[in-house]
Amino acid sequence: MNTINDMQNRRDFLKTAAFAALGSGVAINSVLAGEGAAPALFNINKSGVTPKMKLRFFPYELRLRHVFTVAAYSRTTTPDVQVEIEYDGIIGYGEASMPPYLQHELGTMDSVLAFLKKVQDVIGQFSDPFRLEDILSYIDSLSAGDSAAKTAVDIALHDLVGKLLQAPWYKIWGLDKEKAPSTTFTIGIDTPDVVREKTKECAGQFNILKVKLGRDNDKEMIETIRSVTDLPIAIDANQGWKDKHYALDMIHWLKEKDIVMIEQPMPKEQLDDIAWVTGQSPLPVFADESVQRLKDIVGLKDAFTGINIKLMKCTGMREAWKMVTLARALGMKVMVGCMTETSCAISAAAQFSPAVDFADLDGSLLIANDRFKGMEVVKGKITLPDLPGIGVVKI
Amino acid sequence: MNTINDMQNRRDFLKTAAFAALGSGVAINSVLAGEGAAPALFNINKSGVTPKMKLRFFPYELRLRHVFTVAAYSRTTTPDVQVEIEYDGIIGYGEASMPPYLQHELGTMDSVLAFLKKVQDVIGQFSDPFRLEDILSYIDSLSAGDSAAKTAVDIALHDLVGKLLQAPWYKIWGLDKEKAPSTTFTIGIDTPDVVREKTKECAGQFNILKVKLGRDNDKEMIETIRSVTDLPIAIDANQGWKDKHYALDMIHWLKEKDIVMIEQPMPKEQLDDIAWVTGQSPLPVFADESVQRLKDIVGLKDAFTGINIKLMKCTGMREAWKMVTLARALGMKVMVGCMTETSCAISAAAQFSPAVDFADLDGSLLIANDRFKGMEVVKGKITLPDLPGIGVVKI
Repeated sequence: MNTINDMQNRRDFLKTAAFAALGSGVAINSVLAGEGAAPALFNINKSGVTPKMKLRFFPYELRLRHVFTVAAYSRTTTPDVQVEIEYDGIIGYGEASMPPYLQHELGTMDSVLAFLKKVQDVIGQFSDPFRLEDILSYIDSLSAGDSAAKTAVDIALHDLVGKLLQAPWYKIWGLDKEKAPSTTFTIGIDTPDVVREKTKECAGQFNILKVKLGRDNDKEMIETIRSVTDLPIAIDANQGWKDKHYALDMIHWLKEKDIVMIEQPMPKEQLDDIAWVTGQSPLPVFADESVQRLKDIVGLKDAFTGINIKLMKCTGMREAWKMVTLARALGMKVMVGCMTETSCAISAAAQFSPAVDFADLDGSLLIANDRFKGMEVVKGKITLPDLPGIGVVKI
Repeated sequence: MNTINDMQNRRDFLKTAAFAALGSGVAINSVLAGEGAAPALFNINKSGVTPKMKLRFFPYELRLRHVFTVAAYSRTTTPDVQVEIEYDGIIGYGEASMPPYLQHELGTMDSVLAFLKKVQDVIGQFSDPFRLEDILSYIDSLSAGDSAAKTAVDIALHDLVGKLLQAPWYKIWGLDKEKAPSTTFTIGIDTPDVVREKTKECAGQFNILKVKLGRDNDKEMIETIRSVTDLPIAIDANQGWKDKHYALDMIHWLKEKDIVMIEQPMPKEQLDDIAWVTGQSPLPVFADESVQRLKDIVGLKDAFTGINIKLMKCTGMREAWKMVTLARALGMKVMVGCMTETSCAISAAAQFSPAVDFADLDGSLLIANDRFKGMEVVKGKITLPDLPGIGVVKI
């Protein structure tokens, strides 16, 4: 391997040959090909045959480090499907995660596998992986739902295209990776003793904590954590407060406790109540359950301060980046969230984290069988590797 | 030069070394550098010293092929400034065009030169041209106006970054260049004999014509052109109709004549009247004078069917691409327009033309001293070269 010479040749090429050649596609193909050899653009391999994209996938059960408890039940695993798209010998990685309590929204193992089988059958029709707009619009049109499966394909395509461009997506999007925020880390609801212990542990590793409220012990949880640390805290109320006056009172109380933001204070059906709360809230109020995709955002402009973007819900990186642009243009704040996922989907989401206000990307820290090394949390901060694409390597 | 081998080495590299190395920026730097040599990422040259961006610029008077007449006066030239940003031996090209009748909006020769001098003094502070969001936000913050000068810097940076990525921007944006539309070509207002002659000439070369109306001979112009051709026609009323009922009547009459769209039927100050017209118009109504930048779009959602994006007005390609995303998310149509410009700015605008409904990119066809070869009009259709960046070579 002779990378320095490659880079130098590339520069020399850019400085001389391409700009001496007068600009048509044909002309530049000839220039790139050198002395009468076969064309050598990205999408044409050395044998002169246009390669085809191939999709592979397999179920992969994520093992959680700790039992995960929500209102209804506990669980120790998350169903997940790992995806690869291969093109001209280069492999892009993607992933679909389907936490059971969200399967009506994201898809089930069966529906994801069935959708990916459909994509597997048609993806070879697209000769150029760079045409993300067309490919992803077509895949989106294959069904009304299946957002997790669509996300898996989107991530794998972005990883592939980033590798073809030899650049990470944060760079392709024009972002500064140093601006990636700290990620929140969730302190689970438990007895005060356990919460104090866990908080002490986390306080040394993270710069901002997250607490899920919306039950009957909200104040106790916060006071327990505040007895141990004065780190900033983000709140996810998970639609838990049903009365707008109660919600606003809680937010005022939380403001006193140095809480920095609130996610989804009330049920998504109560949009007018949420708008009323947001209008008077001293803290920014983010939409979570109220927002899934790009089309949902305009209708939330006056009801929320910001939106939480999750790849598994929004069909992937391309739509997520559009959501960032739209929310900013509407004067809204933006955060990025996740499911329990391997470092594949987490690193994909981390690529646009330099453009958001808050990040909740602790999903890969919660699993015991990660398949990838990618985004890392260093002193609490999201730290992106310089690797191309979504920036992951298989472990 | 040994491009085939470079490409092959690159692929081998992608398949093996990078993914064997475990993911930190340092690790990949070492991998890229080979056996103990200096780092070789994009932004670090072979001597190991981070190169600096340098900005150069010079006035360049565009000579028009034909006398250009607007209501107030005639002219045969357009003031223009050509810009280059050099980084590590690679040059990105940009351009500011300042038609005299728009100088209050875009800037004057003096103000553009003064603004570029300011940018020249500070651009070396940015070590990484990929950080477009930060660099362009900073440059935008240097003054309230100066949109043409800002556009020149934006285009040159995009050209540079595209060359560093070795990819044209349509590809980086995920678009299919085959979807670039035909460009309109403007038939100037003149005596019926001259208009007939010019129309015959154009009808063989273009697939859609453009006519500027809003004076007292509107119907005569259209009937004269229709006596020669049944090509689709786009109308720019240039704020010319002052009464909403008259405007709507004209649009109904034009619809009968197989006109396909209307730009800015009424003065921008009469937004309510425009909304009334658009609400009943059988043709799509596009904002031109009513829209300059991203921030203007939301307020136009209910008054226009679509927006006309012009690089010189919106500060460049990055904001233009955000405008496309925002307009689409709001359910609006999009067109791309231009000033008289060289193939530099025209080719930059053409990069996102596969994402628009109408294109009016005849600006470089109107000048006699183009400095570049780039986007070409082939059988009336915008035809993008495969060259990296904005896709131009100096003539």
